[in-house]
Amino acid sequence: MQKPFELVVLGTSSATPTRERNPSGQYVRLDKHFFLIDCGEGTQSQINHYQLKLLKLKYVMISHLHGDHYFGLPGLITSMGLFQRTDPLTIIGPAALQDILKPILSEGNAHLNFEINFIVTNPEKHETVLVHDDFEIETVPLKHRIPCTGFILREKGPTRKIDVDACKKHEVPISFYEELKYGADWKSISNKDLTFPAAPLRSYAYMSDTIYDEGIVEFIHGVDLLYHESTFLHDRLERAKETFHSTAKQAGCIARLAKAQKLMLGHYSARYRELDELLEEAQLEHPQVILGKEGLCVGIESNIEELLASK
Amino acid sequence: MQKPFELVVLGTSSATPTRERNPSGQYVRLDKHFFLIDCGEGTQSQINHYQLKLLKLKYVMISHLHGDHYFGLPGLITSMGLFQRTDPLTIIGPAALQDILKPILSEGNAHLNFEINFIVTNPEKHETVLVHDDFEIETVPLKHRIPCTGFILREKGPTRKIDVDACKKHEVPISFYEELKYGADWKSISNKDLTFPAAPLRSYAYMSDTIYDEGIVEFIHGVDLLYHESTFLHDRLERAKETFHSTAKQAGCIARLAKAQKLMLGHYSARYRELDELLEEAQLEHPQVILGKEGLCVGIESNIEELLASK
Repeated sequence: MQKPFELVVLGTSSATPTRERNPSGQYVRLDKHFFLIDCGEGTQSQINHYQLKLLKLKYVMISHLHGDHYFGLPGLITSMGLFQRTDPLTIIGPAALQDILKPILSEGNAHLNFEINFIVTNPEKHETVLVHDDFEIETVPLKHRIPCTGFILREKGPTRKIDVDACKKHEVPISFYEELKYGADWKSISNKDLTFPAAPLRSYAYMSDTIYDEGIVEFIHGVDLLYHESTFLHDRLERAKETFHSTAKQAGCIARLAKAQKLMLGHYSARYRELDELLEEAQLEHPQVILGKEGLCVGIESNIEELLASK
Repeated sequence: MQKPFELVVLGTSSATPTRERNPSGQYVRLDKHFFLIDCGEGTQSQINHYQLKLLKLKYVMISHLHGDHYFGLPGLITSMGLFQRTDPLTIIGPAALQDILKPILSEGNAHLNFEINFIVTNPEKHETVLVHDDFEIETVPLKHRIPCTGFILREKGPTRKIDVDACKKHEVPISFYEELKYGADWKSISNKDLTFPAAPLRSYAYMSDTIYDEGIVEFIHGVDLLYHESTFLHDRLERAKETFHSTAKQAGCIARLAKAQKLMLGHYSARYRELDELLEEAQLEHPQVILGKEGLCVGIESNIEELLASK
């Protein structure tokens, strides 16, 4: 069994909340690590509503400073304070976010009992911004009306599983097993003769607000799940271009070009009450499309065929 | 018939939203004028939910800079911009609110097509901050952990109605009627002989977060509706004092001392899922208590008995 790697969609509305939809936010779990990606107004209420744990969140990633992507952040932070959080919180986002939060917290006399570590994103280049034993976070430069980054969350861990029988036969000491899992050879014996392939490491790419841009494909190549905004249907391509947004068809194209296993749509214009057409449009470009919806829980799964083929 | 003077409660939760309750916000209508008092996170969604008109709001009053009273304001303003507002908006609140809003609007590249007029409140003294032909807005200094003001919205208008028969008898020109309505005498004839009393002018006092403070009674004396926070039951008086909040009993006391016609409770601690005890406690102090609840519409009515007595 693989470790849990899944997300809950908290909001899929672009620009403003609607009666049916909340602004952007996704609650992501990778094993014992909890991430929030974007935090539109009402995100803390959505976390509450879906019975997710606010205090487990350790990393908050903010793609850009349009309100529908972060106006829920001050309330999220102050609520964490009221709920007696002591664990540090890491915020990954634009530099100006720090300056925005500072007076909000000081004027409200927030007295947080936890530290906030700030990792400033660079909207100009692809970077690895956080390296942990269990995962890495990368940013992807997006093209929007204001500086904006996407995020990639990559699972880290062993790529090989121990073949106990083979190891015993070759008298490999147990103390060397950990190194074997990461691909080391034992003396003259090749790693492949001592291990099986482990389940492939998984990756999730969150491509926030952006105009259609094939420049991102190289960074998100082969991800297991790609979230790509799809604000409009393709018949409103001109409007998409003007506002630096994408169409569902374009989201599908990017997913196809990037060879993403699955694509999830979101960030829908309020003009669409029904979303089926957006889904159908993207499906013409990519076979595996999920319509993001409030409350939807999506597993980030590695491709089992890939696993079998590598055996 | 009197002009409409009513409010819709948008939120009654203290500190953080709960699953049942939203943070503070009240949508107030006085005839053709629309006011928002406090604007916790999610207020624009509540306005949507209750099918109220966002763009009709012309005055937004913010009592203080704890997030549960204003974290919905950036989203409210930017949504007004997205909905092509052009009418100026007047914000009445603490000076620091301007500094907080500035970078939020500039970083988000908001390009509002409407002017924001800012009226800075003084949390140290009772003041009239806005005088309009149809109403006045006063602030009341409250005692909270950070600077905080209450607001009084007072209807303005004629206090007398024309007695047409009497006016004809005394040959009062119609051009003088408007002055008569405001109490002027006609030559040697007393106003009382030419007019009837009009319906009394109404007033609504919103007393936001505050410790029990009889000092406010003189300012809110005789209001038709008093909203007074009631965060706790009186058995948690110590906690109320520590946090500079009030109990339901204390809200009732203030309403009684101020001879308010009616009292509305709100700003309930998340510890109370059922609110009947808060109501009952306040009712021991004042005969007319309303339990504020999300979606409740309350009319601000003048006392008809008072009207009859003055005839």
